[in-house]
Amino acid sequence: MPKNGEGMQNGACLVLKTARDAGVRVCFANPGTTEMPFVGALDMVPGVRAVLGLFEGVCTGAADGYGRMAGTPAMTLLHLGPGHANGIANLHNARRARTPILNIVGDHTRAHLKYDSPLTSDIESLARPVSVWYRSVATEADLARDTAEAIQATMGAQRGVATLVLPVDLQSVSVDATLQGVVPKIPAPTFDRQRVAKIAELLGSKKPAVLLMGDRALSERGQRAAARIAAVTGAVCLSETFPARTERGAGLPDIDRLPYFPEPAREALAGRQVVLAGALAPVTYFGYEGISSELAPPESIALLAAPGEAADQALEAVADCLGATQETAATGAELWNIEPGQLTPQAIGRILSNALPENAIVSVEGGTCGYPFVTASARARRHTVLTNTGGAIGQGLPVALGAAVACPERRVFALQSDGSAQYTIQSLWTMARERLPVVILIASNRRYAILQTELTRGGLPTDAPNSRLLTELTDPAIDWMSLSRGYGVPAERATTTLQLVQALERALAYREGPCLIEMCLP
Amino acid sequence: MPKNGEGMQNGACLVLKTARDAGVRVCFANPGTTEMPFVGALDMVPGVRAVLGLFEGVCTGAADGYGRMAGTPAMTLLHLGPGHANGIANLHNARRARTPILNIVGDHTRAHLKYDSPLTSDIESLARPVSVWYRSVATEADLARDTAEAIQATMGAQRGVATLVLPVDLQSVSVDATLQGVVPKIPAPTFDRQRVAKIAELLGSKKPAVLLMGDRALSERGQRAAARIAAVTGAVCLSETFPARTERGAGLPDIDRLPYFPEPAREALAGRQVVLAGALAPVTYFGYEGISSELAPPESIALLAAPGEAADQALEAVADCLGATQETAATGAELWNIEPGQLTPQAIGRILSNALPENAIVSVEGGTCGYPFVTASARARRHTVLTNTGGAIGQGLPVALGAAVACPERRVFALQSDGSAQYTIQSLWTMARERLPVVILIASNRRYAILQTELTRGGLPTDAPNSRLLTELTDPAIDWMSLSRGYGVPAERATTTLQLVQALERALAYREGPCLIEMCLP
Repeated sequence: MPKNGEGMQNGACLVLKTARDAGVRVCFANPGTTEMPFVGALDMVPGVRAVLGLFEGVCTGAADGYGRMAGTPAMTLLHLGPGHANGIANLHNARRARTPILNIVGDHTRAHLKYDSPLTSDIESLARPVSVWYRSVATEADLARDTAEAIQATMGAQRGVATLVLPVDLQSVSVDATLQGVVPKIPAPTFDRQRVAKIAELLGSKKPAVLLMGDRALSERGQRAAARIAAVTGAVCLSETFPARTERGAGLPDIDRLPYFPEPAREALAGRQVVLAGALAPVTYFGYEGISSELAPPESIALLAAPGEAADQALEAVADCLGATQETAATGAELWNIEPGQLTPQAIGRILSNALPENAIVSVEGGTCGYPFVTASARARRHTVLTNTGGAIGQGLPVALGAAVACPERRVFALQSDGSAQYTIQSLWTMARERLPVVILIASNRRYAILQTELTRGGLPTDAPNSRLLTELTDPAIDWMSLSRGYGVPAERATTTLQLVQALERALAYREGPCLIEMCLP
Repeated sequence: MPKNGEGMQNGACLVLKTARDAGVRVCFANPGTTEMPFVGALDMVPGVRAVLGLFEGVCTGAADGYGRMAGTPAMTLLHLGPGHANGIANLHNARRARTPILNIVGDHTRAHLKYDSPLTSDIESLARPVSVWYRSVATEADLARDTAEAIQATMGAQRGVATLVLPVDLQSVSVDATLQGVVPKIPAPTFDRQRVAKIAELLGSKKPAVLLMGDRALSERGQRAAARIAAVTGAVCLSETFPARTERGAGLPDIDRLPYFPEPAREALAGRQVVLAGALAPVTYFGYEGISSELAPPESIALLAAPGEAADQALEAVADCLGATQETAATGAELWNIEPGQLTPQAIGRILSNALPENAIVSVEGGTCGYPFVTASARARRHTVLTNTGGAIGQGLPVALGAAVACPERRVFALQSDGSAQYTIQSLWTMARERLPVVILIASNRRYAILQTELTRGGLPTDAPNSRLLTELTDPAIDWMSLSRGYGVPAERATTTLQLVQALERALAYREGPCLIEMCLP
């Protein structure tokens, strides 16, 4: 067994060196027996920080948050098919966000697989639906190349989750000490100049238009270019409903989101030319009886840049074609006036907007406070918003965790509904252990409000016994103070606007680790 | 929209009636938007109890525990691919346990699927690895038949998880009110008389033999037959290492488990004829360098009954062939003498064995206390033990929950390691809500002890910084008192044997709901 990465080395060391040399700096891990050589390698190869999650969904969600902020992949370390399965929901979100993640899954030693022992499972079938790239390393000669190709896939045109399965015997196998990692080749994103000319012509016609923006279009550069286009064409800039990452606040154009429910979303696009800049063609989130899934007719949609392409540069090229040199007015920083009274979602959005320090990051999950916050925050100080891209619940807390690891100099907030917080509640412990000063804001209404809304939309009663039982989080209500302290996170409760303002002041003054504020809603 | 199940009905009502009429009594649910018509149906069709889990792994694990005890399937209700994915780990365990589960997954309305909206995913790819049967209902005419076939699959020869995907439009579609459910045909398990004759001959030769028992062989009937065989042949009776369900305690033969680690397991089988009665051919749990995966040479193994077959009846037939009328001596009830002192795993096993009331159920997860308990409990009062069959962590608490729902008249204990408890910790809330008097015993050693053992086995240091970080659950230690109360479960702590004895007395006197005892180990 090699004692360090500089002398003799094992397969795990080679994988780790390859990843480290390609820029991987963090491993969000929940390892088991088949990953022990890799755990050992983390002590032999310096340069990759190991972060333990008590549940795999914490690890994959944290890798998503990290990748969105860092732009480079974090690594996970998961335990065979079932351990990986616990991470699938947040990998689904990461796939929708096109977040680079190097998803490492240990497996049985190759010779053992045929015996179908208890933990044997079809990892490929489980991983393919969430991976842009999948491979189980076949021989020791493939270790470095497969790792490099996986990293290329995370950052390449498809961009997303690359799942690399490492049989444990290939982690512990001795390989030539002089073997170095293979350097992945990451192509720079490009855009299509012919589409630029066509879109400039379309928009130049002054037909009412919407620029539907996602991915790189929502970078500062993309937004500024879109604002130049809007200034000369009158086009409306809209963000896709659940963007992976948006820059927001003072100094940037006020770009609203396409609404979630189909009726207002259709209205926002009705009669307009829709130009896709880093966004997919807009469809309803769910299928509803009597409502078309397409939010705009296909003939009204034109593609400027697909997700993964250089939508920001494409927008600049369109603006240049149009001779657009001035942006629409950027928003200035402005504080909301907070009325005393009971907390409401609107008040929470405004209070949080006021409290955001420069360069904050806000991870938003949950319908109750998510929309009111984004509505309120256009004039907040400059910040970054991360949303739940794939609808798999339990994304907000781990994404905040990963963002805080990626950006230690920025203040991170998790604006989180109480129901969705429960799916990856173990995130609190890792935040406490890593001393990440995340401010966790739990919107506590003790129900799955979205489901009660959907029952009503479907003409079903919300007060029938089983419907109540399955959509209310009462009897008992979760005691967030106790739960939070159980994981080592100090907590307090706010019921009024004044209490929340003061609690946020205390939270911002506290920098030693996470803290939680339960925001009690009626 | 139909107002009740007796007049006009929708597709969800028809599915639910079919399941109810086939004996399904409980639905462990974590629904989302695409399951709302099904939630509505639970209020229209009486006879199926809805139980909410805050996380899908709680639901699938509870269905596993329920099915093991009831012998009939519980139903789950999960939200598309990502919601289902959160339940995969415990479905993996259920597959290994061959537990009947009707796994219902909602999906988008059929016409919406092609638009690849955020929650769209390849449910089939995710579900196949854990399902003995999979189907997405294609038309309304298939609803009742597909449900009946799914239930047949859960209880048939393959026995296990049947995944039935219900597009939301087929849940809400109006169907003929006179349509009744289809009645599933459940074949009775059988065994092979030719194998019986061959095994009787083998065992009659008095060659040293092991009866390796699993599945139905571990029922009372199977154990008594095995004990008759042992009495005349001298064969050793061993349980597979992780049986789905075993009857144990006073009045039954003392059947030990095949050890977990390969060296003692090989020793237990060395030089013996191995007869498989409801167990698979014994292999190592993981593959280890230089150790064969096969724990016994193939030529020494003979099959009496495969899992799913009537191993209990087959054993009786062998005993009859051998003219074996007397059992080996059954164990008598006997209490351990408990020495005062610090808690140890051995002491915990003995104290719990003493405390078990007649007909208790013990769900065991975790290496620290699992083995010492089973070693100690042969002379406890008659009880049932449920273990982690598939190695996917986070199984113990939800299985205890499901067992308590299935058997309200029996007292349920969850003997659970602290690390594995965290994967489905939300189980506590559902136990509290359902007033299930489960006694939760957390073996708190604040580490993944099994991984430290495996590091040592692999020649790796356990005290290197990252190895410690990834195998120790300290900094902060979880505050189990707070965490438990956060979910509405009263908790206390025991550090000494006397404290644990007294805490168990209080726990047994408390019948209003669950309670938790943190058992602090050094």
